[in-house]
Amino acid sequence: MAASSDLVKGNAIVGQSGGPTAVINQSLVGVVEGLRMGLKAAGVVDRIYGMRHGVKGLTKDDLVDLTDTHQDRLDRLALTPSAGLGSTRDKPDPAYCERILEACKKHNIRYYFYIGGNDSSDTCRIVREKAKATNYDLRCFHVPKTIDNDLLENDHTPGFPSAARFVAMACMADFMDNISLPGIKINVVMGRHAGFLTAASALARRRDREFDEVPSHTTDGPQLVYCPEVPFDLDRFVTDVEAIYSKKQRCHIVVSEGIADKDGVAIGAKLIKNAQVDSHGNVQLSGSGALGDQLGDLLKEKLTPAGGKPPRVRADTFGYIQRCWPDASVIDRIEARRSGRFAAQLAMQGHFDGSVAIVRTSSGSAAFLGERDGDAYASDYKRVELSQIAAKTRHMPAEFLSGHNNVSRKFIEYCLPLVGELPGFERL
Amino acid sequence: MAASSDLVKGNAIVGQSGGPTAVINQSLVGVVEGLRMGLKAAGVVDRIYGMRHGVKGLTKDDLVDLTDTHQDRLDRLALTPSAGLGSTRDKPDPAYCERILEACKKHNIRYYFYIGGNDSSDTCRIVREKAKATNYDLRCFHVPKTIDNDLLENDHTPGFPSAARFVAMACMADFMDNISLPGIKINVVMGRHAGFLTAASALARRRDREFDEVPSHTTDGPQLVYCPEVPFDLDRFVTDVEAIYSKKQRCHIVVSEGIADKDGVAIGAKLIKNAQVDSHGNVQLSGSGALGDQLGDLLKEKLTPAGGKPPRVRADTFGYIQRCWPDASVIDRIEARRSGRFAAQLAMQGHFDGSVAIVRTSSGSAAFLGERDGDAYASDYKRVELSQIAAKTRHMPAEFLSGHNNVSRKFIEYCLPLVGELPGFERL
Repeated sequence: MAASSDLVKGNAIVGQSGGPTAVINQSLVGVVEGLRMGLKAAGVVDRIYGMRHGVKGLTKDDLVDLTDTHQDRLDRLALTPSAGLGSTRDKPDPAYCERILEACKKHNIRYYFYIGGNDSSDTCRIVREKAKATNYDLRCFHVPKTIDNDLLENDHTPGFPSAARFVAMACMADFMDNISLPGIKINVVMGRHAGFLTAASALARRRDREFDEVPSHTTDGPQLVYCPEVPFDLDRFVTDVEAIYSKKQRCHIVVSEGIADKDGVAIGAKLIKNAQVDSHGNVQLSGSGALGDQLGDLLKEKLTPAGGKPPRVRADTFGYIQRCWPDASVIDRIEARRSGRFAAQLAMQGHFDGSVAIVRTSSGSAAFLGERDGDAYASDYKRVELSQIAAKTRHMPAEFLSGHNNVSRKFIEYCLPLVGELPGFERL
Repeated sequence: MAASSDLVKGNAIVGQSGGPTAVINQSLVGVVEGLRMGLKAAGVVDRIYGMRHGVKGLTKDDLVDLTDTHQDRLDRLALTPSAGLGSTRDKPDPAYCERILEACKKHNIRYYFYIGGNDSSDTCRIVREKAKATNYDLRCFHVPKTIDNDLLENDHTPGFPSAARFVAMACMADFMDNISLPGIKINVVMGRHAGFLTAASALARRRDREFDEVPSHTTDGPQLVYCPEVPFDLDRFVTDVEAIYSKKQRCHIVVSEGIADKDGVAIGAKLIKNAQVDSHGNVQLSGSGALGDQLGDLLKEKLTPAGGKPPRVRADTFGYIQRCWPDASVIDRIEARRSGRFAAQLAMQGHFDGSVAIVRTSSGSAAFLGERDGDAYASDYKRVELSQIAAKTRHMPAEFLSGHNNVSRKFIEYCLPLVGELPGFERL
């Protein structure tokens, strides 16, 4: 730890950016707690501010003073989904970062914490560079957050385990619903470029049958899982569904909202009318049922027997409740909180910048094997350079995929310990 | 209770019909337990069968013997969403009911239990009439089930409290998400003709502010709630949203999938392409995001300022997880189980037919007032005639509605005790 004398005195600020999650407020509370226990207690930091709606609020003097917010309120806030400070989709360019720096100078901010994805890490990096260039001692830390699980250097990111838990439970329950009545069901899951969340749907299958002679993915839903890492072919999709539907008169399918063809053109973006583009240049994929409906229409058209009735096809798009459902994974709650505290600790240790990354220190195979005496899951935190995270995207590794429409056992082993205990369903 | 000698000896059968719920298996287990404790223990009933996929399985000899299924399995099944026996959408006509009766005679069925909505009650009624006409002693009982809460004579129906809990929690979390970033959010909720489930979204608001001078429905989401009982006018809808959006730059809206115009034409059915019609003559409303997307497109078009950008509008259709989410309301679990047991008890008492209805015996205002010493919720069960339920639909009473886009305090008082404890969220 740095001597207090090495630490620049002033104020600290924390903000939240991008899509909210069920645990981003845990990270916010973690940063505030970490500062109170460290730099504030040491007399280095005076005020702890929050930015309303991220950098947008900072540049408009829209701040909230969290220095003395009661711990009870913080504890309740930590259990509240969504971004408690408000969030923003603004992706600052160099001129915007200049205004951020001016705002920091105005409020004597010396410790800057930003909770978000790879764009937020990039904002931290640029602001830090600009501060250095003007000899203003501003220390910038990034705290990871994204349900997409697409940050490099992280075993996984806070927010992902809770969203994965929701997707797994929704698919478990929806598959039971699907086998109650005949028909084809399509569920559309968030994840523009990374398929981790879509892949988590496979946790819905019974694991005791997963690697039997008859693989459970042919019997248990979801039987077909399409991640954006694998080029999506509409004809092959129809063939896949037909093979299962012709045998079972039903089929349970999960597709990522970000599925794209071999040329990288998103199937969803092609189909959505009046598509909106955000300030990052991304086409809106969530908040619309269009992709699922179009895939459903395609199946009805292609699988209608000559002179017969089309199959019963339903499509649900899980939507925003994936990222905000209040029954968060317990591990995710803990890790998101500790990620925030760890960032405050990096500042206390005298670091000038950095991003927090989660390292898995014990695999957690006990969860997979259902054993009490197996290898329990454990994780730790490390500092990585902002540039290692900034504006980079992690994808599902090949070893997590199996063929073009399934995930591997390795992925199940990876994901299962993160989501917490899933309900045990009984069938007659 | 009837003397055992008054009771016809033979077998019993139980089936499930219509859309599954989170607790329909509780009712199934309740019937089986009730029979075991009563008619089976008394030596009146020999075998207890289940119909696979309701009357469809019964007429095809697709039965499962539940007489000796271990209680542990039943207890796990009770906690499993979906219809454990499989369900059906078949609505038997008189000829079909004839085949049902023949199947009952073939398997010496004397006690017939059918878990479902008003159509299922009607099937019970017709089968019972046909049996009487041929002097076959077949005793027919209906156990209520529907997330729509649209059965007459019932304070509420098993399945509704759990679905209402899901909708309330989803709207709580989604509203927090909505205020994290600017924009308009539309959520589409199940309920073809009855608005109870849509109305349950209003439980998402903070109750401490609900009846302040500034009503919380103007500050807390959902700010606008559209039930199918009130004719839906597209122009008025746009005006409603504009009034809130122009003040707050956001708006949180819930609409029923069954909203219809003043002539009774469903807004959803008008917009959905390739609409499917089920065997009851109903147009498919669920399992598609079309209604939400079309309403979203309308708002984008109408609320775009001259020369400006359209507002950010997102629409989610909650879909099938509303009815199968595995975190059921505790009261719903208990009541669904007891409804099934009560039906078996009616048979033991010597009744020849009947439907089970839930009666509220204590209002449960403690839940509304947040008091421990207030009036605790309590319910009981009564027998009603099959014809009182059969093929009839209950709607939201006028006293549960407030204006054309809100619900009343009376509805909140009615619904809140049913859903169980909701999470407490904190705001900065």
